[in-house]
Amino acid sequence: MPERNDEELRAQHLSFGQRVREIRQDRGLSQEELAELAGMHRTYVSSLERGLRNVGLDNILAIAAALDVSPSDLFLGENK
Amino acid sequence: MPERNDEELRAQHLSFGQRVREIRQDRGLSQEELAELAGMHRTYVSSLERGLRNVGLDNILAIAAALDVSPSDLFLGENK
Repeated sequence: MPERNDEELRAQHLSFGQRVREIRQDRGLSQEELAELAGMHRTYVSSLERGLRNVGLDNILAIAAALDVSPSDLFLGENK
Repeated sequence: MPERNDEELRAQHLSFGQRVREIRQDRGLSQEELAELAGMHRTYVSSLERGLRNVGLDNILAIAAALDVSPSDLFLGENK
């Protein structure tokens, strides 16, 4: 398995967050509206979009449902 | 957003776990070997595959890297 360092991990967190932001904005939703739909706090959505959260599977699934996309869509663009 | 209940969430955790198992077995890896490659304990991989873990983004990315797939592949088959 290729050695993965913190920088790489941070970049992947960031691209996950940016993907959530991209889809949220496509849907015309504010962070507040997405947070409410997904059952979480706005500040959680804000820090997640900045790649600062080790988001759990429950929240990944909740965000995908709130954005009406499949969970795999949130990871498109994440390379191996 | 469609109301999601525990049962639905449990089913999605299970299908995520089964997807990891499917790809692991395709790669001819034991749980022990995957755990070592991904830097986690075998029992964590075992409980994850049974849908019993709220896996964090770090571990999702580590498992995808260890299985040499993109993270979105781990969610294929998870419907909205």
